[in-house]
Amino acid sequence: MLIRELQRQDCNAVRDALIACGAFTDEEVQVALEVLEAGLVGGLSGEYPHFVAEVEQHVCGYVCVGKTPLTASTWHLYWICVHPAVQGRGVGQELLSHVEAFVRTCNGERLVVETSGQPSYARTRRFYDDASYIEVGRIPDFYKSGDDCVLYCKTLTAGGQ
Amino acid sequence: MLIRELQRQDCNAVRDALIACGAFTDEEVQVALEVLEAGLVGGLSGEYPHFVAEVEQHVCGYVCVGKTPLTASTWHLYWICVHPAVQGRGVGQELLSHVEAFVRTCNGERLVVETSGQPSYARTRRFYDDASYIEVGRIPDFYKSGDDCVLYCKTLTAGGQ
Repeated sequence: MLIRELQRQDCNAVRDALIACGAFTDEEVQVALEVLEAGLVGGLSGEYPHFVAEVEQHVCGYVCVGKTPLTASTWHLYWICVHPAVQGRGVGQELLSHVEAFVRTCNGERLVVETSGQPSYARTRRFYDDASYIEVGRIPDFYKSGDDCVLYCKTLTAGGQ
Repeated sequence: MLIRELQRQDCNAVRDALIACGAFTDEEVQVALEVLEAGLVGGLSGEYPHFVAEVEQHVCGYVCVGKTPLTASTWHLYWICVHPAVQGRGVGQELLSHVEAFVRTCNGERLVVETSGQPSYARTRRFYDDASYIEVGRIPDFYKSGDDCVLYCKTLTAGGQ
């Protein structure tokens, strides 16, 4: 598995993964692709650094982070997605570890993630639990009625996980 | 007291209030003024509706809200500020009530606010407590070391407060 910076030719594979993973609405996919374009323009020093995961020379997932405006050293994990064809093989964990290391090199000290509280996102929330993210908030009915926003945060120590 | 839509000639008074109230860093004031400009361009149907409060024909405070992207009916309260010369006279409460009513007319069902957990913001947090906002999260050291983000949410019922 290879984790590397996003390139222009990865866009179709990223769009395929976003649609196939089933976690995102059409509107969310659209916004993710707009942010992807911003990531291509800005690169790793821009507002939205992106990395992709390659398995057997195929791009099968990606991650996007960004420094949180008006904070000293907080970053947000905006998007992370792995194509269902390769889920369960640690691609998400590799993407997450890679981007945490990247944020540390940018002097970021914590990563905040927002995800859904719906039962169908239990696997996603367990993914963050397993990666030592701590639940720090829950906004009832945030996305829509019955669909809470669950906030996680992980403190990134210089040498640690 | 009059609460009305922001107009171009209010900008200096809003800037004065932002600086005088002491709650915002220089960077936060700068961002607030950029959002103010977007509010002037977009108006009440734009991305950042703004209202100002007039006391004795002087603009002494303002509020800015916006629909939260990728949600069905959640809005954020982005900025609220009252000049210290008129604090304690209910201007903040009037601005908040007015903007809550406005959000309801836009079919918004809840308002989310983020503020600082620092001791010096105790009065701000009490303001939200008193207005029936519920603390729904706290992100440690979010703004900077020792400066948590406290998240509040209020459900806006059709006929309620």
